[in-house]
Amino acid sequence: MPNLLPSPNKLITTITKMTKTNPSAPYQTGVSTRLAARSQTLTTQTSGLAPSHLQANLLVLPARYAPSFRLLCRRNPVPCPLIAQSSHPGSFSQLTSYLRPTSPSNPAPIKLAWDIDLRRDAPKYIVYRDGEPVEEVHDLESHWGPDHVGFLIGCSYSFEEALSNAGLPPRHTVQGRNVAMYRTTVPLLPAGVFTGGTYVVSMRPYRVEDVERVREITRRYVATHGEPIAWGWEGMRRLGIEDIGKPDWGDVPLMGDGEGVFGEGKEDGVVPVFWGCGVTPQEAVMKAGLEGVVMGHAPGHMIVLDVKDHEVFGGAVKSR
Amino acid sequence: MPNLLPSPNKLITTITKMTKTNPSAPYQTGVSTRLAARSQTLTTQTSGLAPSHLQANLLVLPARYAPSFRLLCRRNPVPCPLIAQSSHPGSFSQLTSYLRPTSPSNPAPIKLAWDIDLRRDAPKYIVYRDGEPVEEVHDLESHWGPDHVGFLIGCSYSFEEALSNAGLPPRHTVQGRNVAMYRTTVPLLPAGVFTGGTYVVSMRPYRVEDVERVREITRRYVATHGEPIAWGWEGMRRLGIEDIGKPDWGDVPLMGDGEGVFGEGKEDGVVPVFWGCGVTPQEAVMKAGLEGVVMGHAPGHMIVLDVKDHEVFGGAVKSR
Repeated sequence: MPNLLPSPNKLITTITKMTKTNPSAPYQTGVSTRLAARSQTLTTQTSGLAPSHLQANLLVLPARYAPSFRLLCRRNPVPCPLIAQSSHPGSFSQLTSYLRPTSPSNPAPIKLAWDIDLRRDAPKYIVYRDGEPVEEVHDLESHWGPDHVGFLIGCSYSFEEALSNAGLPPRHTVQGRNVAMYRTTVPLLPAGVFTGGTYVVSMRPYRVEDVERVREITRRYVATHGEPIAWGWEGMRRLGIEDIGKPDWGDVPLMGDGEGVFGEGKEDGVVPVFWGCGVTPQEAVMKAGLEGVVMGHAPGHMIVLDVKDHEVFGGAVKSR
Repeated sequence: MPNLLPSPNKLITTITKMTKTNPSAPYQTGVSTRLAARSQTLTTQTSGLAPSHLQANLLVLPARYAPSFRLLCRRNPVPCPLIAQSSHPGSFSQLTSYLRPTSPSNPAPIKLAWDIDLRRDAPKYIVYRDGEPVEEVHDLESHWGPDHVGFLIGCSYSFEEALSNAGLPPRHTVQGRNVAMYRTTVPLLPAGVFTGGTYVVSMRPYRVEDVERVREITRRYVATHGEPIAWGWEGMRRLGIEDIGKPDWGDVPLMGDGEGVFGEGKEDGVVPVFWGCGVTPQEAVMKAGLEGVVMGHAPGHMIVLDVKDHEVFGGAVKSR
């Protein structure tokens, strides 16, 4: 099933629009979102759900790969900001948190969630065997073994709210679409078994004159990819992206008026802005051809946590 | 003086050979090396001096750039492993250490040196004005102002000893030469004022069958660039390096027999292996065109510290 992962998810528009336009939308909290995913009431993507709550990317590895993966995250903290992992091999409900407040008055790690099941709390998962995606599932109970270690990676949905609060809402959120994600040629720094990987990035279009402000707003979000890694059309080419209209994951990006596909020379003064993306670890699993059963969330289908953005990143992130 | 920084240092061969072949060479400790540099008795590069002692790259910035630089290091920890900084602006002798043991029994930061003067303890410095190198000097006393903040960055000399102890001595150390360093096209992830930078790498040739062992040995040295970021001739091209025989800093790399320049297709089964390099921050200063007076060590002319490798990286690093 080589094209399973890249296939864009066409189901997201309705629920995203609903939650963006309806303040009494379902799933206002992390736990209600997780329980809905756990019962498979919620099987679609999570952008806009449980406003102000941290969401997380998931990667689940056989324990023998865990030291390499921790080192991969340490060497590549922008695409792979590790925020927690299973407390011991096999554990899907006990987490060790690495997440600390950006401006710590209390430097202790932040507890992420009080009732969590990594096997069931994402609305959709991808299962890999020997480095190839083989199945999309809504729970991992039949795949998760006593030797599996789960890792949670920060997600850029956190700074999207800050951008919206500053009057710079990401276009895909306004249009009720999923963010566009791309493979790049930027080498992920190798670590142990993880060799040959490259960055995955998410893209949001902005006016050229807003790029510095966008950089400033997202800078503090170090645990959720932080400020952009590149911007502009030349920046796009330096990442090795050839066609902005053909993302590898997520939805095709549209023009500001919603008519037609976003592209170079089509929209005066608007450029693509790129951030590190938490799909990078799954790409790294494929590039490394890891043996055995590896699992991850389906792109866009995050695990929503109890911790709120402002608890991590400080008070400037207004609660909606 | 656009070619000032890249000019290779031709003075290093004698002193390096002397210290490599003579166990009673001068400067066996960090403090004796620093005092020799401070008195300008030592004005040449420091590879092989004070065996087993950590050496450090230096960058000195106006205080207004300090937050951006700390973030640059946090986002790019492999080329820019920040190990200490001035305790307050203007301080050249009081340092705040960020260096912690790899396997901490005591997680407190490690004190780096008991008597240090960042303005005088490197054998040679480069002074930049408005992003351009303008002067090479042996002390910074006339340039260091009350607003300057010094930063120390880990140096790969630490793992060179481990490689030698494992029977895999870097070729340039055997030949008594300086390591070859190269500009690459790999983007340094931007942070605040630091935009447009690219990685600088150091290169050591190894036999293909030894690369995995070389990776294993250097992996634990996370505070001094850690394991390689690329290897092989294809790896070289992915870094955007066109001619391995033309380094941007350090000495031209030679064949194993010392006859002629190392290059592709010239030496069966031997490939270049590349590590992140602490010259990267100085390259970033130039690419960002930082205003005002910035200072750095001259490549290869490090500040030698009192802390020993085994205190940071554990017991497997045998003392010579």
